[in-house]
Amino acid sequence: MDRTYFGQHSSSQFNEALESIRNHLMEMGGLVEKQVVDALDALLRADSDLAEKVMQAEDKVDKLEIQIDEECARVLALRQPAASDLRLIIAVTKAVSDLERIGDESAKIAAMALQLSEEGESPRGYVEVRHIGNHVRNMLRDTLDAFARFDADKALDVAAEDNEVDLEYRSAMRSLVTFMMEDPRAISRVLNIIWSLRALERIGDHARNIAEQVIFLVKGKDVRHISMDEMEEKVKG
Amino acid sequence: MDRTYFGQHSSSQFNEALESIRNHLMEMGGLVEKQVVDALDALLRADSDLAEKVMQAEDKVDKLEIQIDEECARVLALRQPAASDLRLIIAVTKAVSDLERIGDESAKIAAMALQLSEEGESPRGYVEVRHIGNHVRNMLRDTLDAFARFDADKALDVAAEDNEVDLEYRSAMRSLVTFMMEDPRAISRVLNIIWSLRALERIGDHARNIAEQVIFLVKGKDVRHISMDEMEEKVKG
Repeated sequence: MDRTYFGQHSSSQFNEALESIRNHLMEMGGLVEKQVVDALDALLRADSDLAEKVMQAEDKVDKLEIQIDEECARVLALRQPAASDLRLIIAVTKAVSDLERIGDESAKIAAMALQLSEEGESPRGYVEVRHIGNHVRNMLRDTLDAFARFDADKALDVAAEDNEVDLEYRSAMRSLVTFMMEDPRAISRVLNIIWSLRALERIGDHARNIAEQVIFLVKGKDVRHISMDEMEEKVKG
Repeated sequence: MDRTYFGQHSSSQFNEALESIRNHLMEMGGLVEKQVVDALDALLRADSDLAEKVMQAEDKVDKLEIQIDEECARVLALRQPAASDLRLIIAVTKAVSDLERIGDESAKIAAMALQLSEEGESPRGYVEVRHIGNHVRNMLRDTLDAFARFDADKALDVAAEDNEVDLEYRSAMRSLVTFMMEDPRAISRVLNIIWSLRALERIGDHARNIAEQVIFLVKGKDVRHISMDEMEEKVKG
């Protein structure tokens, strides 16, 4: 978050509390981003050690979720935040749930990586994993960046990217299903890739959810469940 | 929620605001429960009209999510709730996200029902859908009931059920994957069932999340990311 946003309260304790929440959210975001990157690497390189590492990182992410929610509850109870401070607390509380679930999905991908390192590689699907994986990883980085900078325009871009990911995902699924019919002996291995793609698609959804919270935070407008055109109007208007 | 919980504030407007949030949460819960039941019926009876109805119901669920979050933000801004009132607002804000996602998953099941009504039935998997479907539907009903009654013990039971659903889900998956290898021509149809089971398993996860919020609300303890034994200790202790 822009530092100028803070320091506007007469209470320095209030400022410190908001600053601490900000730092922890960014720490959690950084950890989760690393989990996504490592999970993808583990899958693409059949690296079971790295996959184990991703699964172990969940614990730290979970603890941060609980800690941040506690900090937010304390600020709500003691500081009675209003206006943009209140929106910040609400947006953070929603965002940590999404970050935690992105961590979950990364752990699922890591589990698939382990599975594939035991069963042997899938004959198809790595190109799609790499492509969609890079896409959602960039979305996650951009949405965290938008949160840090209070950048509603960047958040809008992330939301638009999610529609592209959904199209890429559906196209990848169609070709993998066709392939399984042609080579049924590979079904079990290809399914590991399919589950990983599914997890990536979910990560894209969660990145989009966080982007929507950034827009709420900056613009004070709830942009969930509306079309991209409506969202753009609310951000630019 | 137990009515005795309300009416303890000197401000009748505050009481009305909390009562309204309670009513809307229960309305949303009821709608979502109906979506789950209808989605299952649509799948099991290959009823495409009912499937369409489930998908159309999403809009109303989405609107309620936004409305309830607005009401919660207003109470936070104007009433500065403390202690159990604050926990209620936090728990409701988290629970509506989970309810909305249960609605999403129901719509996915409905989409699979439509698909199957076009492609023809899957040769396998309906027994599992019915069984796991009933299980998660009961979990959802019980968790909403636990929320309405501030019943932490009942919430604990729901959390325990989720582990059983996960086992049932994994066993169903194994047998369906084996079946696909034996009859590759059915892959596409069986996959529709697999996606539906996946959605049901996710609904179980979300019901469990709501149950954890009920325990937080009633006991003031965060029971996310801990073992069932630890959770039981925190609820009973």
